[in-house]
Amino acid sequence: MLDFSFVSPTQFAFGKGTQAQAGEFCRAFGQKALLHYGGGSVVRSGLLDQIKHSLQEAGVSFVELGGVQPNPRDTLVYEGIELCRKERVDVILAVGGGSVIDSAKAIAIGVKYGGDFWDFYSGKQTVTGVLPLGVVLTLPAAGSEASNSSVITQEKTSLKRFCDSDLLRPKFAILNPELTFTLPPFQTACGVTDIMAHVMERYFTNTQGVGLTDHMCEAVLMSMVKYARIVIQNPRDYDARANIMWAGVVAHNNVLGVGRQQDWSTHMIEHELSALYDVAHGAGLATIFPAFLRYQYPHNVMRVAQFAQRVFGVEMDFEQPERTALEGIDRLKAFYHEIGMPTSFKELGAKEEDIDRLSAKVLLNNGDKLGYFHPLTRAGIAEVYRLACD
Amino acid sequence: MLDFSFVSPTQFAFGKGTQAQAGEFCRAFGQKALLHYGGGSVVRSGLLDQIKHSLQEAGVSFVELGGVQPNPRDTLVYEGIELCRKERVDVILAVGGGSVIDSAKAIAIGVKYGGDFWDFYSGKQTVTGVLPLGVVLTLPAAGSEASNSSVITQEKTSLKRFCDSDLLRPKFAILNPELTFTLPPFQTACGVTDIMAHVMERYFTNTQGVGLTDHMCEAVLMSMVKYARIVIQNPRDYDARANIMWAGVVAHNNVLGVGRQQDWSTHMIEHELSALYDVAHGAGLATIFPAFLRYQYPHNVMRVAQFAQRVFGVEMDFEQPERTALEGIDRLKAFYHEIGMPTSFKELGAKEEDIDRLSAKVLLNNGDKLGYFHPLTRAGIAEVYRLACD
Repeated sequence: MLDFSFVSPTQFAFGKGTQAQAGEFCRAFGQKALLHYGGGSVVRSGLLDQIKHSLQEAGVSFVELGGVQPNPRDTLVYEGIELCRKERVDVILAVGGGSVIDSAKAIAIGVKYGGDFWDFYSGKQTVTGVLPLGVVLTLPAAGSEASNSSVITQEKTSLKRFCDSDLLRPKFAILNPELTFTLPPFQTACGVTDIMAHVMERYFTNTQGVGLTDHMCEAVLMSMVKYARIVIQNPRDYDARANIMWAGVVAHNNVLGVGRQQDWSTHMIEHELSALYDVAHGAGLATIFPAFLRYQYPHNVMRVAQFAQRVFGVEMDFEQPERTALEGIDRLKAFYHEIGMPTSFKELGAKEEDIDRLSAKVLLNNGDKLGYFHPLTRAGIAEVYRLACD
Repeated sequence: MLDFSFVSPTQFAFGKGTQAQAGEFCRAFGQKALLHYGGGSVVRSGLLDQIKHSLQEAGVSFVELGGVQPNPRDTLVYEGIELCRKERVDVILAVGGGSVIDSAKAIAIGVKYGGDFWDFYSGKQTVTGVLPLGVVLTLPAAGSEASNSSVITQEKTSLKRFCDSDLLRPKFAILNPELTFTLPPFQTACGVTDIMAHVMERYFTNTQGVGLTDHMCEAVLMSMVKYARIVIQNPRDYDARANIMWAGVVAHNNVLGVGRQQDWSTHMIEHELSALYDVAHGAGLATIFPAFLRYQYPHNVMRVAQFAQRVFGVEMDFEQPERTALEGIDRLKAFYHEIGMPTSFKELGAKEEDIDRLSAKVLLNNGDKLGYFHPLTRAGIAEVYRLACD
């Protein structure tokens, strides 16, 4: 096990009707909030009105900034920073999923910084202060409600880059599984895929002696497979929705990742797909992850076999463990299909002829090689994309 | 799944040599520390000197209060409160295991309170403020380094009572697995037993639809069985020590207990044993837990069978699941024996003739019945003690 530091200070309020606590939570951080959200669904569902009511009851005034898009853009972040400064906002309340929260995080950083907030995403600066940030979560997926990171796309370059710091962990997060009953099946499945990827990016490691977090990762993966199947059949199953929602937190607050070398290659490889084609991040991950494993498994057959046996119940082939590993990868891909995810470039809407360009972009800010499990050269990355073609 | 709130804000520094960070961590909370510890081992090992050096380097002055005993007493707590007030202490640094940390928590509460600190342990008062508290952990067991609770024994009555509040979670905790290399096997095994009990008190629940935390509990239990066997053979196995140390945190910061009804009956039943005979808490738990399960399993055979199958790999008997459940309980008991724990009154040094007195004391502050899984009357509690006799 490797040395580590870990802190996950977010206060979670989980359960039915918890959005009514939004005002009270914000009040602890000041008198004026920025209400940050995306498109129409939080308006149509009446959630935004409930939250405004809660803020008013708590004596918190607010300004609004909607319009966050999936794969959130720097342009809206600049607008939010300006608005917070002009209106002397004390606390940002993000109402939505990962895109809204990531956008809110970028605003929270930018308000406290004299220069261009992109400096933090291009690696030029380290975060030293942020505006307090709270969350009302509507989509369990990105885990941004608990994580230390944010991903923003620079509109003019299509570059998707991340920033991380423990200061980016929200002060509070309100999670009501009922708010996810009406999520479309595709979005639900994208969320499940993203959550599972957050676990697997931590799971496929070369670090030895991490049996506890191995088993904990497997616990979350098994549960996701179980509950995803239930919600695809019955979108209003509270317990299934609740387990998925809490899994999103556990998968990405890093309690599963401590003491082990992580490898976020798949996210990096996917980011270029969603930046170029504007496809859903989860859909891109479902396409890339089985291909990544298929390319990488010879490097550590036993770890992939362990995954196959423990998560998907594949019988261990002690004579030929690689068969177990491959069967596990097939089951993962079949599971993605079962919940309605694309698992090929064709299904995703990506193009084989873009592979060179995509591979080059992945390495643009990442040196010569990507990842740790089995570092990928540009040719290796291209091969992963190629394996994802069909 | 039940509604819940969850916060675990402790900053963990985990790994080799991390005790050198003690001064720096304390410095963030003030200029004067109370160094609180137990007996000779932290002195003999040189750990206390290393920490004093770290405090001096960071410019933090300190006063000392050693002498914390296992099952920490109120008398030393009163002394600590007085000392902190007199010396205008800013931060308490507990160096030791659960007893030292629990004692430090009680001091941290008491310093900020005008009345008798025992008011918080007798349930008369709710915690509203504490002195900042940090930890250098030497014994993975109680989980107090991450928990919201503290247990203190009132010397004149032998009553062992607890207090809980999220304010009792330490600000920081320093965990170096190397510091546990020299723990005697008995103490190591007591710690393992306590950690497993913290998981099982959460695991044996009637709450439905909590598959994620079920699997996470099983993950920790399986890992404890694995790594406990390793350290009993090889006390200096770093990875095994590290997995056990981190499991102590995960087992008791409540990430495994969210959204489910918990049942702390076994701890309550054990507390009276350690209060009366001054036996190690872990040893008492090893004696009580199998007896508790043997008395309770008919109430929920399938849950105990699930435990047996998933944690100890007992083959599920689909015709007679109670056989699976009983086999699981036997395996648990055998495991305790294997790591050197007592599993009977006789081995523990408790007396059958005290059962009536013990049973009455358990219910003294707990109403007519104990617990939730299958609430225990005084007769039921006595029966659990009786099943623990041999």
